[in-house]
Amino acid sequence: MTAANQLNPPARFLMGPGPSDVHPRVLKAMATPLIGHLDPQFIHIMDAVKDMLRQLFKTKNELTIPVSATGSAGMETCFVNLLEPGDTALVCVNGVFGNRMSDIVERCGAKLVRIDAAWGSPIDPDQVKQALQKRSPKLVAIVHAETSTGVLGPLEQISKIVHDAGALFLVDTVTSLAGTDVRVDDWQIDAVYSGTQKCISAPPGLSPVSFSPAAVEAMEKRKTKVQSWYLDMTMVRNYWAGAKRVYHHTAPVSMVYSLYEALRLIFEEGLEARFERHRRNHQLLRDGLEELGFEFIVPPDYRLPMLNAVKLPPTIDDAPVRSQLLNEYNIEVGGGLGDFAGKIWRVGLMGCSCTKNHVNMFLAALRQIIK
Amino acid sequence: MTAANQLNPPARFLMGPGPSDVHPRVLKAMATPLIGHLDPQFIHIMDAVKDMLRQLFKTKNELTIPVSATGSAGMETCFVNLLEPGDTALVCVNGVFGNRMSDIVERCGAKLVRIDAAWGSPIDPDQVKQALQKRSPKLVAIVHAETSTGVLGPLEQISKIVHDAGALFLVDTVTSLAGTDVRVDDWQIDAVYSGTQKCISAPPGLSPVSFSPAAVEAMEKRKTKVQSWYLDMTMVRNYWAGAKRVYHHTAPVSMVYSLYEALRLIFEEGLEARFERHRRNHQLLRDGLEELGFEFIVPPDYRLPMLNAVKLPPTIDDAPVRSQLLNEYNIEVGGGLGDFAGKIWRVGLMGCSCTKNHVNMFLAALRQIIK
Repeated sequence: MTAANQLNPPARFLMGPGPSDVHPRVLKAMATPLIGHLDPQFIHIMDAVKDMLRQLFKTKNELTIPVSATGSAGMETCFVNLLEPGDTALVCVNGVFGNRMSDIVERCGAKLVRIDAAWGSPIDPDQVKQALQKRSPKLVAIVHAETSTGVLGPLEQISKIVHDAGALFLVDTVTSLAGTDVRVDDWQIDAVYSGTQKCISAPPGLSPVSFSPAAVEAMEKRKTKVQSWYLDMTMVRNYWAGAKRVYHHTAPVSMVYSLYEALRLIFEEGLEARFERHRRNHQLLRDGLEELGFEFIVPPDYRLPMLNAVKLPPTIDDAPVRSQLLNEYNIEVGGGLGDFAGKIWRVGLMGCSCTKNHVNMFLAALRQIIK
Repeated sequence: MTAANQLNPPARFLMGPGPSDVHPRVLKAMATPLIGHLDPQFIHIMDAVKDMLRQLFKTKNELTIPVSATGSAGMETCFVNLLEPGDTALVCVNGVFGNRMSDIVERCGAKLVRIDAAWGSPIDPDQVKQALQKRSPKLVAIVHAETSTGVLGPLEQISKIVHDAGALFLVDTVTSLAGTDVRVDDWQIDAVYSGTQKCISAPPGLSPVSFSPAAVEAMEKRKTKVQSWYLDMTMVRNYWAGAKRVYHHTAPVSMVYSLYEALRLIFEEGLEARFERHRRNHQLLRDGLEELGFEFIVPPDYRLPMLNAVKLPPTIDDAPVRSQLLNEYNIEVGGGLGDFAGKIWRVGLMGCSCTKNHVNMFLAALRQIIK
């Protein structure tokens, strides 16, 4: 029997596609001794988390909770609860996460209709409109902030088209939530999921989700059981939101503590101030990167502030320079996925990683490496 | 916008069915600043966790990892990866968790054969033998330590019967692992899952799993995709165990830190010493409870040391006395589930909650309340 050495990870600055840096108060919350997941005092903490999540999503949706797993499980939760075998789902695909949605739709036994756009381009609302003239899917899904490409999706226009066609509107806000405006009620989003490790700046491990009354009705009308027991909202909601909190699974107590504290920090700063901070630091980074010969792959109108996808100048070799940034400066940035591997970087400015100091440090390190 | 008050949970002693008390070193590990989930230094931490989990499970299985969600997701992981629609699964049911297994089998589109025993009784190996004479299921599943009743399942005898019939053997060790002996290789267990919040004494949020080469072969021979994207081991293993660590989902970094430190504590104590501590404190608790008129519902041969299911004496009213324990003494014990609600208590002595002091405090508090 041999125990491993003492836990001793390096002190990094996290400027990749997530996780982002976590505030000391959130780290401290994680170290809070646990109480039981059915303790009346924990129920109060759950209620406060739900209340703060509703404010963050800008929704009155009663069914607004954190799923007990990371963002991808939030994605799966939305699809498996709304789709039954034989249903049709229309998925907008312009990056890795649209592809992942499509994969999940097929695993639900549903019929998949894809609307594809080039990686780095937004989905054209007209394409959605045309697709909906030919068929009536149960839901239309889109990624708000595509983490693989840095594209912001035009939600408002598409939402109107989707609802005119009588479908439910499902949105991925993993990277956008708490870094740019997300208005679930105003934009009539029926199912939405996010992750804690991006602009919320809590550790990865929970996926906030919210369902509109129409989505809840669709769940209640199901003829078949949800294929996932763990993610079955008809049971999970009785634990998180029922009048009598019925045991389902053991909630990850410490993760809920961390989300609680991260949400408090968000509202102490204020949402508008937070979004403005993300915009401002994105501009500072953009100016510095363009000066060094990087090119943004997304046009300004659809460019995310918190996830900067930039084409490398010919003078910079992807892997060796990222290694140098990591090993010599403790700065993590993300490489490209799929077709973009080796060609782009993804520089994250999310939550606590979105400061002038992060931008300045990163640009200075880069100048020293490539000089 | 309103932020909630400062996080301020009470300081409890957790003597229910989990979570258990968490060692200060594990809490401190949770507060460690994060590194990226693809950072080479994180890969080393993952490797150390896998290595320690193999020692804990007493297995050489390469595919031994923590699933990024709580124990119930570990259960689902084992079933959805091994079963395809049309397969037959035989499930031993003598409590809540056998029922949950049965529910999941049906959600996989597999044919369910149940072997039932009374709650509080172990499964009779002869029943399994008889059931296997009539049919050849792909797998047989059983709970090692039934958390709803306090029964220890006779794994060794049943394992032999299962393998003689050519089936895979799937075992729930959520409550047993790290509190009593679990010998995955010696007992020829093909798929096993556990949770971190019981005898491992880390916070809830991860589910250690291990798959034998035969189970991995069964996964590789699948004709259909695993119905859960999040829990699909054919992809998850490329991130946790592949030569090139391919991004799948963002691992819950802080939870992995906590498991790392909890495993170190386990091996510093030594497995045999730890099991002996659980036996000894169970005896101390048993003597005290019997003196107060409680009756164990499980015969001594099948009685779990870490989960003590006891019938209340007529002098004790379930809910009010548990409330008093919680509110006046900060001691949490569990009530009964299902048919046992209101009739039994489940007193946990798991991991860091398994000390002489916990037993003495609890018995003293109880004497004061009922005197």
